[in-house]
Amino acid sequence: MLEDKQPALTPLEKLGEFGLIKHLTKNFPLENPSSVLGVGDDAAVVDFAEEKTVISTDLLAEGVHFNLGYVPLKHLGYKAVIINLSDLAAMNATPTQILVSMALSNRFPVEAVEGIYTGISLACKKYAVDLVGGDTTSSQSGLILSITAIGKAREEDLVRRSGARENDLLVVTGDLGAAYMGLRILEREHALYLTNPKIQPEMEGYDYILERQLKPEARKDIKKKLKDLGVHPTSMIDISDGLSSEILHLSDNSRIGFRLYEEKIPMDELTLLTAEEFCLNPTLAALSGGEDYELLFTIPPKDYDKIKNHPDFTVIGHAVSKSMGNKMIARGCHEEINLTAQGWDAFLRRWPGT
Amino acid sequence: MLEDKQPALTPLEKLGEFGLIKHLTKNFPLENPSSVLGVGDDAAVVDFAEEKTVISTDLLAEGVHFNLGYVPLKHLGYKAVIINLSDLAAMNATPTQILVSMALSNRFPVEAVEGIYTGISLACKKYAVDLVGGDTTSSQSGLILSITAIGKAREEDLVRRSGARENDLLVVTGDLGAAYMGLRILEREHALYLTNPKIQPEMEGYDYILERQLKPEARKDIKKKLKDLGVHPTSMIDISDGLSSEILHLSDNSRIGFRLYEEKIPMDELTLLTAEEFCLNPTLAALSGGEDYELLFTIPPKDYDKIKNHPDFTVIGHAVSKSMGNKMIARGCHEEINLTAQGWDAFLRRWPGT
Repeated sequence: MLEDKQPALTPLEKLGEFGLIKHLTKNFPLENPSSVLGVGDDAAVVDFAEEKTVISTDLLAEGVHFNLGYVPLKHLGYKAVIINLSDLAAMNATPTQILVSMALSNRFPVEAVEGIYTGISLACKKYAVDLVGGDTTSSQSGLILSITAIGKAREEDLVRRSGARENDLLVVTGDLGAAYMGLRILEREHALYLTNPKIQPEMEGYDYILERQLKPEARKDIKKKLKDLGVHPTSMIDISDGLSSEILHLSDNSRIGFRLYEEKIPMDELTLLTAEEFCLNPTLAALSGGEDYELLFTIPPKDYDKIKNHPDFTVIGHAVSKSMGNKMIARGCHEEINLTAQGWDAFLRRWPGT
Repeated sequence: MLEDKQPALTPLEKLGEFGLIKHLTKNFPLENPSSVLGVGDDAAVVDFAEEKTVISTDLLAEGVHFNLGYVPLKHLGYKAVIINLSDLAAMNATPTQILVSMALSNRFPVEAVEGIYTGISLACKKYAVDLVGGDTTSSQSGLILSITAIGKAREEDLVRRSGARENDLLVVTGDLGAAYMGLRILEREHALYLTNPKIQPEMEGYDYILERQLKPEARKDIKKKLKDLGVHPTSMIDISDGLSSEILHLSDNSRIGFRLYEEKIPMDELTLLTAEEFCLNPTLAALSGGEDYELLFTIPPKDYDKIKNHPDFTVIGHAVSKSMGNKMIARGCHEEINLTAQGWDAFLRRWPGT
């Protein structure tokens, strides 16, 4: 798919590093008043006046975080931005700028890089974020995308991982496990394609979970929704590695334990059906699948009435003393199961349970 | 050198991603008042009150920007930080924080990564910069280092690339070409080593140029020196790709031309001697070698008296109208030679003239 067979493809050498950067960034206007200086100088300049600067960075490596065999470049660019914006949402900050660094081997023509930037541009527009800098260079092999996202927040709005207290309620946005089941579909169809390139992939009917995997969204909307409800979370994190791993992070940073109720974990109907198709316990997809980019947070018990019945929020557990540890109360039997960090570990390069 | 032969080496899997990050960052205290929140949450938080936030990012790829055959990991970590701090110095900003992202294949044991972090830590201490975040993950092959540096500057102190005016003087700090000649020595000795590993490398007497290549420094000191002299540059850039390429950037951004006087280019005696040893025109090393991390800036002619005879500054040319183009006045014959972007282009992966 990426080989230089089509007549119109342009090798990277033709533009050179500075030419490529100019070419790729010409359609990225600065929209935020806080963007003082963007691409084209030694550094970007941003100005948040009385608000604090919030910064997050994530690096995606080909073959580790994505497989270009079934991830379109446009989606890769979009998702790479989303992953970083999600980190800012998890601080209750408002994203405003990104810097994009990229290393790519010369197997990629200019058009491939343009595809990535098309996705980056779509995400920038949708989330009102400005591209203000970055670095583009070659690599010996493969593609590396390193994005830094910048946002702003007033001190009183910031939510750290460390503020949860005993008896706080554990709340999650949206539904979980869908992105992982979407990945399983993509992997299955890609494996079939490799055995016989003439087979048409069977993607029909899986739209929701495929979109959750290929085109996730960051919960930038939650900051305003919580503010409107008068709720200020005591701690918050985004779900990138899986519910289990994120609960353990909140536990670790806040020095408390958690009780999670399996039957409360919100999951979409299609996630459940697809898990059944793969003979997989859907709870595992939620606990360890990751890439949901939903927000997990804690609120004081007194705020329960403010969020109950809200379509975006589900109470899935509560905080207990640290000595009681982190456990999931299983559906039906009410057995207590220890929560372990089974989230996807980039060093093990494997999905748990597979 | 990096193979896992010594008994004490620890594979990366043993610590896992979160364990490795905790292990590597435990000795990085937050020293700057502006560092509100560091490693260990979804994002870092910085606060510069009335000053602006200045941000730069650079990505280094093994085999493209460095060769671990002759670059010690500690030096690589140090230099990767310096490159970013140099970009902030070029904005006349004060560096305060960095974020470090790294992708590395499992051929690297934990001890190798510790070596990189030792260098990062040394640079942080020397430049009073806090490590506040980052990402660590695996790669399919090789090592990628992506660093984002954050600094602060008052609006009135910031220097962009775009403010040079006709008749402004072109000034450079320190001396040029040494880092490139250091690289040539390293490459020569490494090539000899590859033909016969028993040969001891001949590094004696080359200390200055080797240090300029392996352990460069960022000119963080220049901001204060210029302030003390009462000089505010009209434009500024750091010399990472070579004098020629940087002059063209200032020309492009400020919409003017330049005249550079070859005989004025400051070069160290050892740089000149080593160039002679390699039968190389030393001016080429200054014009196209790069990696000097000195600052190139313009000042109004009226400020000449303030900087003349200062040991850190050399006037090497002046700005002319855009239509007159960018030319170097050759030593002796006074021939006018067109300046072209012969800086090291990461896509061409070659040094000009080699």
